[in-house]
Amino acid sequence: LEDFDKDVLIELFADLEASEIARLLESIPDSQRGQLWSIIPEDRNGAVLVELGEVARLSLVNNLENEQVVEAVSNLDSNDLAEMVDTLPDEVGDAIRQSLDYKGLQGLEASLAFPEDSAGRVMETEAVAIRSDITLETVLRFLRSRESIPAHTSGLMVIDRQRAFQGELHLSDLLTHNPSMLVEEVMDKEAINISPLASQHELAIMFRDLDLVSVAVVDDDGILLGRVTLDDMVDILHEEADHQILGAVGLDEDEDLFSPILPSAKRRLFWLGINLVTAFLAAWVIGLFEATLEKIVALAVLMPIVASMGGIAGGQTLTLMIRGLATGKISSANAKWLAYKEIAISAISGMTWAVVVGLVSYFWFSDLRISLVLAASMIINLLIAALSGFGIPMFMKRIGIDPALAGGVVLTTATDVIGFVSFLGLATLFL
Amino acid sequence: LEDFDKDVLIELFADLEASEIARLLESIPDSQRGQLWSIIPEDRNGAVLVELGEVARLSLVNNLENEQVVEAVSNLDSNDLAEMVDTLPDEVGDAIRQSLDYKGLQGLEASLAFPEDSAGRVMETEAVAIRSDITLETVLRFLRSRESIPAHTSGLMVIDRQRAFQGELHLSDLLTHNPSMLVEEVMDKEAINISPLASQHELAIMFRDLDLVSVAVVDDDGILLGRVTLDDMVDILHEEADHQILGAVGLDEDEDLFSPILPSAKRRLFWLGINLVTAFLAAWVIGLFEATLEKIVALAVLMPIVASMGGIAGGQTLTLMIRGLATGKISSANAKWLAYKEIAISAISGMTWAVVVGLVSYFWFSDLRISLVLAASMIINLLIAALSGFGIPMFMKRIGIDPALAGGVVLTTATDVIGFVSFLGLATLFL
Repeated sequence: LEDFDKDVLIELFADLEASEIARLLESIPDSQRGQLWSIIPEDRNGAVLVELGEVARLSLVNNLENEQVVEAVSNLDSNDLAEMVDTLPDEVGDAIRQSLDYKGLQGLEASLAFPEDSAGRVMETEAVAIRSDITLETVLRFLRSRESIPAHTSGLMVIDRQRAFQGELHLSDLLTHNPSMLVEEVMDKEAINISPLASQHELAIMFRDLDLVSVAVVDDDGILLGRVTLDDMVDILHEEADHQILGAVGLDEDEDLFSPILPSAKRRLFWLGINLVTAFLAAWVIGLFEATLEKIVALAVLMPIVASMGGIAGGQTLTLMIRGLATGKISSANAKWLAYKEIAISAISGMTWAVVVGLVSYFWFSDLRISLVLAASMIINLLIAALSGFGIPMFMKRIGIDPALAGGVVLTTATDVIGFVSFLGLATLFL
Repeated sequence: LEDFDKDVLIELFADLEASEIARLLESIPDSQRGQLWSIIPEDRNGAVLVELGEVARLSLVNNLENEQVVEAVSNLDSNDLAEMVDTLPDEVGDAIRQSLDYKGLQGLEASLAFPEDSAGRVMETEAVAIRSDITLETVLRFLRSRESIPAHTSGLMVIDRQRAFQGELHLSDLLTHNPSMLVEEVMDKEAINISPLASQHELAIMFRDLDLVSVAVVDDDGILLGRVTLDDMVDILHEEADHQILGAVGLDEDEDLFSPILPSAKRRLFWLGINLVTAFLAAWVIGLFEATLEKIVALAVLMPIVASMGGIAGGQTLTLMIRGLATGKISSANAKWLAYKEIAISAISGMTWAVVVGLVSYFWFSDLRISLVLAASMIINLLIAALSGFGIPMFMKRIGIDPALAGGVVLTTATDVIGFVSFLGLATLFL
């Protein structure tokens, strides 16, 4: 980075969108981000902060003066400001609050009043709204006098005198109909609208499935509050997928690839610590069979096979279940069928691989009884793996634990323990 | 499902979007999908086929007559038709081809001529294009005479006499400028355009980062070919995330939660088979140390701990690397720094947990030498895990293997083998 000419960078940054600059900042070590900050064009540094992942944003802000942050966020919407106040240290939040005028502060507090992860939090209040009893000609004249339309506007919100939501006038309909027609004749009366209390997850699924560009936010009394646009929703869909991908290895979806070593190590140490406890639990289970192991050392050689196969088979079921729950495909109506299917698959897998491991181990150790014990424990463990892979996420969801985060650990603990107990237990009984 | 009144379902389906019907079909067992097909409104059954996941689509089509499929797809765009011909059995593809007129067939073959996963494959050719030397008034009159604008149009493509791409006239600019102005005065001359050969992955990242609604597709000679719209890109972003989530457990992103048991079992058996080979490899490595294990059975008890910790730590690095490579954050410029960071983190983790396992195992077996061997092999295995988690995806990417599919297996094989070799090997040398 030092090799680059500062002027070249300034010129480069002038052409980039805020999101591209944010991606660039996330691709360099944390320590160099402060230097780059000064090069970002001033009109875009607020938007860059919004686009940064949470961990990267926090580390950058910690390297800036409070005044720099306040200045950067001065031209942000109330919903982006609310995200800043929510994710940054309290003192930075207070500095932001102090910099606002009465109206700005009111907007911020209104946004913060909605629950986290609700539509109200990502709602923009700058939507263009028009009345239903005017002609398209009047709308066209109004837009020309306005000289600009907010980004991601595919339609204008139609309201009555009391700001009650009536429908949406799609720009394409405005453009293709006779200007003498009335808005109420042309508008889409069935236009979807959502409550500010709707969850962002539901909303994102809706945007994806219905190919929406924006949607009106309407309160219980039918009053138009604002709109949610696609750009925020695409980010949320992404965060949810990252949540499952990174959650499976104990990391946060805001994990920063280039954050400094110590904080990264701290977050990962925690996950390894949890795994160590479960590994000791498995070791303790093995320890219960020390006497058997001492007699037949071949058991120590074969024992990881059963546990490992259970972990893999259970992991497949678990991953499909978590994905199905996240995308809303699994409900109580079809859960029973799914459980039946997963158990049937595991029975097929279990019997197939039981034959294979039985044969291979017989050729290796020439001991029929060891091979039979290994085959039997394989079938038992794959059945338990399917039941766990199905049951753990269903149970966790019911009691309000996120299966994407904790599902994998609980599952491998179960398959390891059952794997060792069934194999070494059967061996103790029959060998 | 049988309990439902058919009339109620028909009414329900009439109100649903194609994507919602597709999601519903994917949420019921495969055997019941044929029944539901007849209830889907005829104007939407082609779109439902497009929205279905590949596996679900194939199973449904296998239950339909060729004529039913041909009729369903008769009103699809050439790009959607190309997807059908590509993913359905050849005889269905031939039946579709035979049903097309000359122009339709030409459009289909033109689409199929572009490489799979290229922008050309998802391009629509129905974009509205206008000339640059006319007034906005003329454009407004033209649109009114057209009576409709294709969905997801946020701007009109501007071309010259030779269909060369000049820029884009955003609808918002068309609406907010004086009608007497010329298109070329108002149009966005910097509007982004892409080659039909651009990869869908690059394109999806671009849509997300630049918050685009549509983008012009322009060939090497500057001629406008069509446009790509956001709705296709949102699906692609989704598929890529699903690819990593499901690929990690050996499944396809088109995996169908409710497909019949036997095909599902077949796909999963394969993955378990690969794992069985690696599990036997690990068992073989343990077998090399049978003499040592026979002397000290405590080693068999503790041995899974080292392998398991290596697998978890390596999995964290691997997941971050695959995610970073997929989102374009990792390049040769910053790879060295990342490798250094991952090794530093593993050194910290290794030393921390080495102390913990050393102490716990000392209290358990009261054998200082066993504890020292366990601690040393923990440090060795976590270092190897970090190197593998970093190196495996980088190497696979270079030689063209998809790390999201094969990375996890190679990694666990490495951490299992090194875990057992370092622990049992050190034990053989020093105990």
